[in-house]
Amino acid sequence: MTLTLDTYLVTQQDLSAGRSTESIVADAIAGGVDVVQVREKDRTARTQLETAEALREPTAEAGVPLIINDRVDIALAADADGVHLGDDDLPISVAREQLGEDAIIGRSVSTVEAAREAEEAGADYLGVGAVYTTASKDVDDEENGIGLDVVGEIANAVDIPFVGIGGVTPERAPDVVEAGADGVAVITAITQADDPERATRELGEAVEQGKRRRDELEGEA
Amino acid sequence: MTLTLDTYLVTQQDLSAGRSTESIVADAIAGGVDVVQVREKDRTARTQLETAEALREPTAEAGVPLIINDRVDIALAADADGVHLGDDDLPISVAREQLGEDAIIGRSVSTVEAAREAEEAGADYLGVGAVYTTASKDVDDEENGIGLDVVGEIANAVDIPFVGIGGVTPERAPDVVEAGADGVAVITAITQADDPERATRELGEAVEQGKRRRDELEGEA
Repeated sequence: MTLTLDTYLVTQQDLSAGRSTESIVADAIAGGVDVVQVREKDRTARTQLETAEALREPTAEAGVPLIINDRVDIALAADADGVHLGDDDLPISVAREQLGEDAIIGRSVSTVEAAREAEEAGADYLGVGAVYTTASKDVDDEENGIGLDVVGEIANAVDIPFVGIGGVTPERAPDVVEAGADGVAVITAITQADDPERATRELGEAVEQGKRRRDELEGEA
Repeated sequence: MTLTLDTYLVTQQDLSAGRSTESIVADAIAGGVDVVQVREKDRTARTQLETAEALREPTAEAGVPLIINDRVDIALAADADGVHLGDDDLPISVAREQLGEDAIIGRSVSTVEAAREAEEAGADYLGVGAVYTTASKDVDDEENGIGLDVVGEIANAVDIPFVGIGGVTPERAPDVVEAGADGVAVITAITQADDPERATRELGEAVEQGKRRRDELEGEA
């Protein structure tokens, strides 16, 4: 199975402008989102499970992988497609053993070395960032994130696909993909958008634009 | 297998007077502790796993069940004996499905109704409380906890064993057991004791005293 990562939504109920995560995800699916990750770290395990269960049917019907942040047990209980793990979470090997070979296991990394380690440990994809700092919309704040150069280095260092995350907007997405990412992951660019469906579609178009630019560069090379 | 619950230690690294949880647990085992639960909610999943793994061998050698708070995935990864669940955690049915029939599954309850529900859902034991408020050492603060009457009502309502938890000290333990608990669970009465081994032993003696009192009462009845 090829994992499409063009547009990757990370949920956060309390950054959803008063709308439910279920409604945001429904809109994102209508807008063509490729992956949905439930990341509700401030919520109880019970609430995370209920959210995952509520998203299972609509994502499955749309063919959109449903990923759970951190909790392997919740992923299993909700019959999710996989988990996304960070430095503070369980090791990839533990998740793989409990979820099996078919599960999608993602890993957050911010360096080339960590990207290589995650690939060797069996990650199916990476979340690379923060590319930009998320706090500011200032286009010049790349210096506070890992930046596009590191995105390019990671693209050269690993074979597994990855999304750029952290401060990514439709305006910035083409640059992130041109630099080497397979797609982009966002929270607020979708969850706080006036129209999450349109925002998702625009993000997808921005990713396509980045791919065209990259193809052109590679054609020139 | 009969589950002995006389003395039940709940760990909390940041309430251990600068000592490691491993050293506290070693002392508690020397003092005859019956169950150890890893409850480090403020720590990362990775750290919780490492703590559980470090405790697996010493507890297994002592025949002391090792229980993990909340996280079924960490319990599985560390080959722990079971999990302890509260209202905010995964349902008992989910834990049972993932851990299997032999796992020990505990449930926190504070009412007779919740105790009955947990028993019906397949809990192996209960943590009942808070019996007393934990903040104060004032012996009169039972009114702020569920109190000994509710402990007695739960003892009459369910067949599974349970520990009283919340503000329990060696001084109060006999009352809690006399009221109907099978044992007592503590954090600071052991983790912050000058001598955790002696504190565990004294707690066990206090539980024995409570059992004798209850036997005498039953003999009179």
